[in-house]
Amino acid sequence: EVVPTCESYAVRRLPFARLEEGDVAFFERLLPGRVVTSEEEVKPFNVDWLKSVRGCSQLVLKPQTTAEVSQVLRYCHERNLAVNPQGGNTGLVGGSVPVFDEIILSTALMNQIISFDKVSGILVCQAGCVLERLNKYLEEQDFIMPLDLGAKGSCHIGGNVATNAGGLRLLRYGSLRGTVLGLEVVLADGSALDCLTSLRKDNTGYDLKQLFIGSEGTLGVITAVSILCPQKPKAVNLAFLGCQSFAKVLETFTTCRTILGEILSAYEFMDEKCMELVERHLKLSNPVTGSPFYVLIETSGSNSTHDKEKLNSFLEQAMASGLVTDGTVATSDKKIKASHLRERITEALTHDGYVYKYDISLPVGKLYDLVTDMRARLGQSAKNVVGYGHLGDGNLHLNITAESYSHSLLDAIEPFVYEWTARCSGSISAEHGLGFKKKQFIQYSKPPEAVVLMQQFKAMLDPKGILNPYKMLPSAP
Amino acid sequence: EVVPTCESYAVRRLPFARLEEGDVAFFERLLPGRVVTSEEEVKPFNVDWLKSVRGCSQLVLKPQTTAEVSQVLRYCHERNLAVNPQGGNTGLVGGSVPVFDEIILSTALMNQIISFDKVSGILVCQAGCVLERLNKYLEEQDFIMPLDLGAKGSCHIGGNVATNAGGLRLLRYGSLRGTVLGLEVVLADGSALDCLTSLRKDNTGYDLKQLFIGSEGTLGVITAVSILCPQKPKAVNLAFLGCQSFAKVLETFTTCRTILGEILSAYEFMDEKCMELVERHLKLSNPVTGSPFYVLIETSGSNSTHDKEKLNSFLEQAMASGLVTDGTVATSDKKIKASHLRERITEALTHDGYVYKYDISLPVGKLYDLVTDMRARLGQSAKNVVGYGHLGDGNLHLNITAESYSHSLLDAIEPFVYEWTARCSGSISAEHGLGFKKKQFIQYSKPPEAVVLMQQFKAMLDPKGILNPYKMLPSAP
Repeated sequence: EVVPTCESYAVRRLPFARLEEGDVAFFERLLPGRVVTSEEEVKPFNVDWLKSVRGCSQLVLKPQTTAEVSQVLRYCHERNLAVNPQGGNTGLVGGSVPVFDEIILSTALMNQIISFDKVSGILVCQAGCVLERLNKYLEEQDFIMPLDLGAKGSCHIGGNVATNAGGLRLLRYGSLRGTVLGLEVVLADGSALDCLTSLRKDNTGYDLKQLFIGSEGTLGVITAVSILCPQKPKAVNLAFLGCQSFAKVLETFTTCRTILGEILSAYEFMDEKCMELVERHLKLSNPVTGSPFYVLIETSGSNSTHDKEKLNSFLEQAMASGLVTDGTVATSDKKIKASHLRERITEALTHDGYVYKYDISLPVGKLYDLVTDMRARLGQSAKNVVGYGHLGDGNLHLNITAESYSHSLLDAIEPFVYEWTARCSGSISAEHGLGFKKKQFIQYSKPPEAVVLMQQFKAMLDPKGILNPYKMLPSAP
Repeated sequence: EVVPTCESYAVRRLPFARLEEGDVAFFERLLPGRVVTSEEEVKPFNVDWLKSVRGCSQLVLKPQTTAEVSQVLRYCHERNLAVNPQGGNTGLVGGSVPVFDEIILSTALMNQIISFDKVSGILVCQAGCVLERLNKYLEEQDFIMPLDLGAKGSCHIGGNVATNAGGLRLLRYGSLRGTVLGLEVVLADGSALDCLTSLRKDNTGYDLKQLFIGSEGTLGVITAVSILCPQKPKAVNLAFLGCQSFAKVLETFTTCRTILGEILSAYEFMDEKCMELVERHLKLSNPVTGSPFYVLIETSGSNSTHDKEKLNSFLEQAMASGLVTDGTVATSDKKIKASHLRERITEALTHDGYVYKYDISLPVGKLYDLVTDMRARLGQSAKNVVGYGHLGDGNLHLNITAESYSHSLLDAIEPFVYEWTARCSGSISAEHGLGFKKKQFIQYSKPPEAVVLMQQFKAMLDPKGILNPYKMLPSAP
């Protein structure tokens, strides 16, 4: 049983109104059959995927249309009721569940695809569409979504946009800030903002939608998304390689970028500790062994003969120059799935004990120094200190495991990890966001004047502060 | 001689302070030798590149550092003096020159490259660096800028970012909203906002820099830019093709995207009228003739053998299926330059008479209907109605020429062109921005609530309205 957040963290409920019977009656009239009040049914909406935080909401609302979201928010705004927008509830920083009794506004039933244009590759859909479903729909028409992540089976595209999700395809297709072309958003007072254009280029005024991308539900509720989708690659190849040092991992990256060029779609690295955990806890066997570092390279292209030639040419050079000591290549779909050890690391870690998770952006050259320094610092007090991540994007996933949660171990890790990151001008959250758990650390990555400006934007767009309170920003002074 | 804007347009000077001798003395102490006051020397800063608008500024300031920009703006803010930030002054909508006597704040001397990291491809530089110079600097290290446009020889990267410039490489490398990683900005009150990170991923709070990208100098002065640069392609190929209908231009695009895939870097189209004007006015010969439409395809890749194979395979299919009736292919650098007829269209148009210029985003399928409709509407009252543009991005450049400017012709074109665009949910400014000339048409592409929100952002960040007044947004009610 997860301890309620309001008990485990020192946080005070803000003076929002409390839910009354009349409120529930209003919502039941507005959303007949789509209002959840039973404690048992509300429960999964109150707890995050990691089972690390728990809210005490008594009410889940499931609108189907933008007009309904508008009416819900207009009502909550007038009544001063706090609202927790929720997509697939797969966030890792406690941003998607209530802290106290916020009303949960779920996009679960907003799952309609509105349009897809095969000439431009532009998809328009409601916010509650599940990422994997969208991708399957597109694949049937020889397109794919420009993002892919582990939670694809349950995360909603609206939540992806609200958290500016990164994931595995960012190296190739860029961030959502480039691929999201339009948004429809309902503001805190219930007014709808229609920026749902389907144009690649539009320079008429400030790009308002950017403010909502990555705002974690604190500025408005995203109700629909227009997104540019790439063509489905005709050929996908994987190479899994062993390197004798992190310096060689870096040099291999430079070499592979030069030779693979436009077909490089992922460059992931992991240390041997990661592989040990995957082997031990999940009984998966590593196809390449005996190296302190492993690299997973993915190519996606339009011509399989050309792609194989490029990949072979890269491998020959990497082997000949001693960058890579061992490796295996997978081309069929089946083999590719088998070599996706990388995707199972998060799961293997949960089997190793309590996990302290960090999602850090750093200059690529310094990426692994943080792991080495942390390992030296913690010594025997941690069970395992492992590093892996999207090297091509400068994104390190640093994970520390221990038999159980310990306050003294946390004190040894934090704020050390944030101070280290700040000294290198890194980001303390590369892709997971700040949510509830990281909001007090924002100053390690943003100067005070930027935080003040953010608070001003929040106050302007949501003067009563009802949208996803206690999240992302430190409270205004 | 260009008629001063304040005489030719019905616009009233806002009640800013007027420049006094004490002000000039202050600036001369602050920026010794970098204050321009002589009428002759100020003149080129007052007139836009098209020679269509003219301001009456008496003062140009040329700071070299962010601290100097801060001091200038702090002073102007206190004194209530209006400021016109200016980069290379290559804008096409009158956004880069003063309307009345605004002080011109030029980035001309802020031209230092701060750093370039060859592993990550991230360039950090001051705002006044000329685009072409940056590209040359990068090419020496086997990288390129992610944007390229006709004005590259004089436009500044700060101006490019402030106007969210599009250009020729957008199809391949995406918009500046994805490639710009960080900005340093000085706000209207002189305070500096440091968002100059060099990280591909950073989800710590709202992405403030996005607000300044495309804000046309109305929210802050961009002083430094951090930008992600792609590797220099090893092979570039061009194909210039003739198509018998616009439907075939579209089908050729779909075919070429499938076969060329990741190496397609530009897909430009132009109608036969464009080619006629280039031949007539510039004495250039069209390598392919006798078609109502022409297409220019560019590929950029890492392996010239592979790229040529892909291009040949595409051409064979396009010819065999009758999509393309004639064509020529260029692979050497020299030939590529010779076939860049596309780049000279703007110039050819200026030789044809007075030019009414429109830069429209539309759903790709409807792109040419606007040209056809306009041609039918104007009949003999226009000399030429031509269409060309970045088809791959859904961006049409519609140009109408006449012997001389005529108010009645303008009335026949506007608001028809904007209404037509709005009916198709297009954008009345795909890449040029709104500046001074198009600001009153914003409502054709943005709903009233979005414009109100923009005005609120402007009022919040620049409460006295001193930054680039009379531009981009209709005046607040």
